[in-house]
Amino acid sequence: MEEQNMQSVMEKAQVLIEALPYIQRFNRKIIVVKYGGSAMVDEELKKHVIQDVTLLKLVGFKPIIVHGGGKEISKWVGKVGMEPVFVNGLRKTDEATMEIAEMVLNKVNKSLVQMVQELGVNAIGISGKDGGLLKVEKKLSNGEDIGFVGDVTEVNPKILYDLLEKDFLPIICPIGMDDHYNSYNINADDAACAIARAVEAEKLAFLTDIEGVYKDPDDKDSLISELTVSEARELIKDGYIGGGMLPKLNNCIDAIENGVSRVHILDGRIAHCLLLEIFTNKGIGTAILDDKEDRFYRE
Amino acid sequence: MEEQNMQSVMEKAQVLIEALPYIQRFNRKIIVVKYGGSAMVDEELKKHVIQDVTLLKLVGFKPIIVHGGGKEISKWVGKVGMEPVFVNGLRKTDEATMEIAEMVLNKVNKSLVQMVQELGVNAIGISGKDGGLLKVEKKLSNGEDIGFVGDVTEVNPKILYDLLEKDFLPIICPIGMDDHYNSYNINADDAACAIARAVEAEKLAFLTDIEGVYKDPDDKDSLISELTVSEARELIKDGYIGGGMLPKLNNCIDAIENGVSRVHILDGRIAHCLLLEIFTNKGIGTAILDDKEDRFYRE
Amino acid sequence: MEEQNMQSVMEKAQVLIEALPYIQRFNRKIIVVKYGGSAMVDEELKKHVIQDVTLLKLVGFKPIIVHGGGKEISKWVGKVGMEPVFVNGLRKTDEATMEIAEMVLNKVNKSLVQMVQELGVNAIGISGKDGGLLKVEKKLSNGEDIGFVGDVTEVNPKILYDLLEKDFLPIICPIGMDDHYNSYNINADDAACAIARAVEAEKLAFLTDIEGVYKDPDDKDSLISELTVSEARELIKDGYIGGGMLPKLNNCIDAIENGVSRVHILDGRIAHCLLLEIFTNKGIGTAILDDKEDRFYRE
Amino acid sequence: MEEQNMQSVMEKAQVLIEALPYIQRFNRKIIVVKYGGSAMVDEELKKHVIQDVTLLKLVGFKPIIVHGGGKEISKWVGKVGMEPVFVNGLRKTDEATMEIAEMVLNKVNKSLVQMVQELGVNAIGISGKDGGLLKVEKKLSNGEDIGFVGDVTEVNPKILYDLLEKDFLPIICPIGMDDHYNSYNINADDAACAIARAVEAEKLAFLTDIEGVYKDPDDKDSLISELTVSEARELIKDGYIGGGMLPKLNNCIDAIENGVSRVHILDGRIAHCLLLEIFTNKGIGTAILDDKEDRFYRE
Amino acid sequence: MEEQNMQSVMEKAQVLIEALPYIQRFNRKIIVVKYGGSAMVDEELKKHVIQDVTLLKLVGFKPIIVHGGGKEISKWVGKVGMEPVFVNGLRKTDEATMEIAEMVLNKVNKSLVQMVQELGVNAIGISGKDGGLLKVEKKLSNGEDIGFVGDVTEVNPKILYDLLEKDFLPIICPIGMDDHYNSYNINADDAACAIARAVEAEKLAFLTDIEGVYKDPDDKDSLISELTVSEARELIKDGYIGGGMLPKLNNCIDAIENGVSRVHILDGRIAHCLLLEIFTNKGIGTAILDDKEDRFYRE
Amino acid sequence: MEEQNMQSVMEKAQVLIEALPYIQRFNRKIIVVKYGGSAMVDEELKKHVIQDVTLLKLVGFKPIIVHGGGKEISKWVGKVGMEPVFVNGLRKTDEATMEIAEMVLNKVNKSLVQMVQELGVNAIGISGKDGGLLKVEKKLSNGEDIGFVGDVTEVNPKILYDLLEKDFLPIICPIGMDDHYNSYNINADDAACAIARAVEAEKLAFLTDIEGVYKDPDDKDSLISELTVSEARELIKDGYIGGGMLPKLNNCIDAIENGVSRVHILDGRIAHCLLLEIFTNKGIGTAILDDKEDRFYRE
Repeated sequence: MEEQNMQSVMEKAQVLIEALPYIQRFNRKIIVVKYGGSAMVDEELKKHVIQDVTLLKLVGFKPIIVHGGGKEISKWVGKVGMEPVFVNGLRKTDEATMEIAEMVLNKVNKSLVQMVQELGVNAIGISGKDGGLLKVEKKLSNGEDIGFVGDVTEVNPKILYDLLEKDFLPIICPIGMDDHYNSYNINADDAACAIARAVEAEKLAFLTDIEGVYKDPDDKDSLISELTVSEARELIKDGYIGGGMLPKLNNCIDAIENGVSRVHILDGRIAHCLLLEIFTNKGIGTAILDDKEDRFYRE
Repeated sequence: MEEQNMQSVMEKAQVLIEALPYIQRFNRKIIVVKYGGSAMVDEELKKHVIQDVTLLKLVGFKPIIVHGGGKEISKWVGKVGMEPVFVNGLRKTDEATMEIAEMVLNKVNKSLVQMVQELGVNAIGISGKDGGLLKVEKKLSNGEDIGFVGDVTEVNPKILYDLLEKDFLPIICPIGMDDHYNSYNINADDAACAIARAVEAEKLAFLTDIEGVYKDPDDKDSLISELTVSEARELIKDGYIGGGMLPKLNNCIDAIENGVSRVHILDGRIAHCLLLEIFTNKGIGTAILDDKEDRFYRE
Repeated sequence: MEEQNMQSVMEKAQVLIEALPYIQRFNRKIIVVKYGGSAMVDEELKKHVIQDVTLLKLVGFKPIIVHGGGKEISKWVGKVGMEPVFVNGLRKTDEATMEIAEMVLNKVNKSLVQMVQELGVNAIGISGKDGGLLKVEKKLSNGEDIGFVGDVTEVNPKILYDLLEKDFLPIICPIGMDDHYNSYNINADDAACAIARAVEAEKLAFLTDIEGVYKDPDDKDSLISELTVSEARELIKDGYIGGGMLPKLNNCIDAIENGVSRVHILDGRIAHCLLLEIFTNKGIGTAILDDKEDRFYRE
Repeated sequence: MEEQNMQSVMEKAQVLIEALPYIQRFNRKIIVVKYGGSAMVDEELKKHVIQDVTLLKLVGFKPIIVHGGGKEISKWVGKVGMEPVFVNGLRKTDEATMEIAEMVLNKVNKSLVQMVQELGVNAIGISGKDGGLLKVEKKLSNGEDIGFVGDVTEVNPKILYDLLEKDFLPIICPIGMDDHYNSYNINADDAACAIARAVEAEKLAFLTDIEGVYKDPDDKDSLISELTVSEARELIKDGYIGGGMLPKLNNCIDAIENGVSRVHILDGRIAHCLLLEIFTNKGIGTAILDDKEDRFYRE
Repeated sequence: MEEQNMQSVMEKAQVLIEALPYIQRFNRKIIVVKYGGSAMVDEELKKHVIQDVTLLKLVGFKPIIVHGGGKEISKWVGKVGMEPVFVNGLRKTDEATMEIAEMVLNKVNKSLVQMVQELGVNAIGISGKDGGLLKVEKKLSNGEDIGFVGDVTEVNPKILYDLLEKDFLPIICPIGMDDHYNSYNINADDAACAIARAVEAEKLAFLTDIEGVYKDPDDKDSLISELTVSEARELIKDGYIGGGMLPKLNNCIDAIENGVSRVHILDGRIAHCLLLEIFTNKGIGTAILDDKEDRFYRE
Repeated sequence: MEEQNMQSVMEKAQVLIEALPYIQRFNRKIIVVKYGGSAMVDEELKKHVIQDVTLLKLVGFKPIIVHGGGKEISKWVGKVGMEPVFVNGLRKTDEATMEIAEMVLNKVNKSLVQMVQELGVNAIGISGKDGGLLKVEKKLSNGEDIGFVGDVTEVNPKILYDLLEKDFLPIICPIGMDDHYNSYNINADDAACAIARAVEAEKLAFLTDIEGVYKDPDDKDSLISELTVSEARELIKDGYIGGGMLPKLNNCIDAIENGVSRVHILDGRIAHCLLLEIFTNKGIGTAILDDKEDRFYRE
């Protein structure tokens, strides 16, 4: 083999060996991936996310995907001649809209199954209805009834344990049922967080459209790479966190406080961000962790 | 207890006792139910079918539902301003149509899951994509390419065995993937037949919109209650069978010859037709059976 | 199908569907049936009881039969020229009597096995000796030694769990051993109650020769259909309960207080009383239940 | 320790060590013991037989006991004032006699259970009715109908495998059912032989009242210690074998030819004959073996 | 059989029957045997020990052997021209010595495996390195660093449970690793004691070169056959125990106080001492037991 | 993240993704690694080999290591003052030499265990004696008896399946026993080949001190990267293969013809050669494959 080739080959080996302690560390652990945003729209990024999750499955982790589909729902609502309505950032969801939302989310769901199957791993696409996974109650928006929008009240993880035991990769769309077995749309971040808590996931990773949590959103240099729950609370109290990041960060805190070991806010626009976060010692985005945990990952 | 009450109560007991040998006979056997036609449109009938299948599950059978959704697909194709096109009775399925078909079938699928869950039994709604259940190849219509319409070429029943072992009721919509992992629509009768063969079902029951097989379709008295494979072939050869019944009967013959013990063509418009067929000694519709089988059921 | 037939068929379906919630409710639950009295003498009733229990087994319950045989024992004691002696209602059981009692009870036991096997379900007839199921100590009658009559001091349920796991219907005759491995006769009601407690049965049903508990035994209209433990205690304190009903009711209270969910005193002279109690919303006889339980069954 | 003690202790160790290869050889093997004759009457011998079988169980074998009870049956037939009738050596068994036979055999059965339980091992006493173990058809005596005397036509060993798996010692009394589920008495030797064949026992041992097979019954020195099937056939053909030994030897030949590795005719009047046969290199009684087997046991 | 033979045969049966309660008592219990001293040097004794342990395995116990090899190590240290150095009775173990110690101990280990395999039982020879069984820290001798001599700080018994479940006889040589994965020699008595504690062994037996614990070592009549923990402490306090017995007795006390039911100090120079201790009611050597235990064994 | 960092990170992701199809392809497959030569002497290479095998284990493969230790044996033979003797390239192995060989090989064996444990994976070091893994017979060298050098005659893989099931990495040194349970040294290549055959390994990889098979050993450009069995035979026949490569190549052919899918001759002097061979599409060394197999790996 030529010199040059040999060197390139050696570098490859080095990357694989670098992954060794991480593979070992997360072996047979459950990792919930909230998949949404740009990473679901760009076909190339989509492929990378699915490759990443499939690789996690193959090297012995137990990934679970929870996905959204907001933009696609709006598109189809328009297609049938209806107008999307939002109240305080929440989609007003009457029966007709709910029907479309369910159709679209399940379509997205099965297209992800398709991609995983193509990579040779067995996936099952389910919603929160299957096996009674997600129970909800109606969510009001500042007291206003905005239709079939639900808050998760209970997670029945039996179906997930069954599917993981049988070596499937579960892919979940965020629809649940209330006590009268009506369908409700659920915010995908909330669903992912509730599921991660219920199965006591090792990790919960949010693929987002931002680089992570900033101390000052206008200052790209103020990206925070690790944040304890206390620090996160402080930032919120001091008003540093706003917009869509606020509920997301609250979800992170909630997850950590209920048994999830570590939550990651990753930039889904970076190819293979998930893989890089887990398998290399660089780290990407912001990690939220327990106050007591040692910060050994990246230091 | 009053006389009259007592008599009514006794009659109830009699019905339950009458069911005993059938419960015993089909204990832990797989029963594939092709669910379609009027029974899927009429809300009352829908409820009865789901009650029946759930009861079968609870008394120890292993039912699997395969459903269609043709009318609903046409409705939604219309809603988005497209025109359904049929070639020799097969829906011409371009990419846009396939997208709608998949959305609609998965919506129907999850609504059936919902109804079963409401009755307290765990269901999972899957398509032929999940776990690579159904592999297809393009189906031509008299040599003409009509788009994403597929013939089942292979069934991978692992996912079904896994779900049955974990005590779920699998509900399947007839979508499969070809070798390049494209989605295809499959005729629900064909899908049910292929699945019944693959799991060597004890029974395959078609819920249809007719009373059964007639010797003379114009003569309501010519309904045939039992038919061996040979007799069915004879009827076809002699030209007695036409219209939509011909492919259905061919499916029945195919199933019997590939390990399914008995196929039933039932009138889905009769409430609880499935239950009555299985649990009483009256029988309903037409049963197709192996030439060698004894006809002990109803005699 | 003719109008009239169709109606009859529909009514059958209705009965089966009515059973659905009960089948679901008691799925895989243990039900202990104390079988005795007229229902063991009349051949027709005997057949009905066995049909009922076998049906319970087939639809997914886990029934256990505990039976007596007092009249048959007396008959055989007479046959060999001995005189049955009773002290305060308890059979004086010397060694010769015990030998006959054991022979007769085991004969009855195996004849029940025979009937269940004939219905196609696997049964095993055991006594409290097998697998060390029932440990007893000598029971005195007002301080008087009346021979080999025992009180259950310990139940070792391993054998029952083993047999249920292997899908057998256990049929038990009430004979136990003391610390020195001598055989003792046990009151069948007591044995059934002790076993129901040990396996934490969902239900314990006594098949008796009366319609249930009366407030006023002379007033047939005063039959009580449901009774909480507190109410039962009240009735006993107020002297409403006497004769053979007193120990039976005490057994019921004891069972409820030790983990059995519900106890039924049924009229074994009504054909299929067990089936009717469990599968219809009429209810028969008297149900004893926990003070806190909601009375949803029949209302 | 004193000299003398030490020597005695050493001899003990020697006996245990001598057992080593036999324990190893028969580890987890099924051994069917036909228990009858004097060994069932003499209380001391009875105790020894039960000790032996229990020891076999504890050191890792899987013993099954099949017992008779002829003398005891006759006694009880007499007790109720009836007269035992024999036709060609077979008990004429009308319905009344069958009832007594069943009572007596089950009583004997449970008394053996009692003795095994006392030694700390779990036993279950069953008849050929339980779990449908023994199917029979009526046996004629030279064409004459002698009542409920049956020949085994089918053995369903599921119940035995289930009980062995759950670590019980099965004790079987030889009663079976015909196609109409009537009870029949079976010759215990025949039952033991049929069961040993069905479970492909490693050994079948008959405890008898003779020392073994003699070439010349009048010459005590002509005891045969090993006999191949061919040699046994020769002896029968040449008329050396008569009386009760003839059917027993035919049973032995039948067992060997159907998968049992070795059959032993042991003198049940010698204490611990079973243990000695299996654990020492002396051997007792007559062993019947396959023509091809090497005779390494005792040489 | 002749009179004399018969008597000898009867005596054999008696020994086997005498073993019955002990086999029953220790069925499936773990017994750790510390094997060392003369019993490892004398080829005949060696054979007897291995026979004993193999027999224990075959009759249903779960023996584990922990062995030393001090004399053999010294021999090989000499062979390569080095001089064994001892500090306060502990071998000074530099890197070169440790290398030899590991070689010798593993050689001895595999030779024991060989002997067990020859008796037809599956053995695996491991050290405390395999599966991370034994973690150690450096042991100082009166503050002096004597090299790679370790104290057990943690036992990870997973490997032992795995091997026992798969029916292997584990044979362990006392080498462990510290936190930096260096090899250390461990005193075999200490290793056996730590392992017995970790697996909560029923028994821990030390094969030694003395007859047991003496009240007065010079008075052979003062051998103590049973000793409670309190009594042992008393003896130590009163200065009766010295030399190599002191650490051994402390190990015994430590084991009893940490879940081992009974510890035996046996004279390994007596053939089959292990067998005799366990299977006969004579007892050999000294048993150390809990203060509360009844002394039923030998009385 | 800076541009440059980002690019480097992307390249890392690419390497991991490139590994995906290989991880998938060999998931849960057994890979036997013959470990010897320079890779066992150089401490750095040693570490790389152990890292590679541990990584294979962690990502779902089932590696088994078979190692030699020839140079180390010679060193110790010298240390004790003996002279290594070779006959036709085989070590003359008298009893004293065998004793040293066994000591050294087991020491090497446990040092490999140590390294794997340090990486956090459970290993067990065994020889062919444990669990009766390797049976041998004496190997003659041109008819001459050269002592305890053995040819494998039988492999009993139970121990390997047990250890793999319990998730251990088995590390094997090539010592076996003959029918009389004497120890024999086995050529490590032969042992690895016999073991790979017995467990029907997916791959067998030889770590050697050469780059692979050359058509012309003097022409470094004539390295053959893939070789079918037929081609290999041709090369041998035509005299291209000589020296130590001849028996190795014969071993390869033998393995392929007995169920191993692919054999690799790798250059153990290249760091991480094993990882590179399996996880990248470059390939290293020479692969020997079945005549019928497609050569898709590297093309």
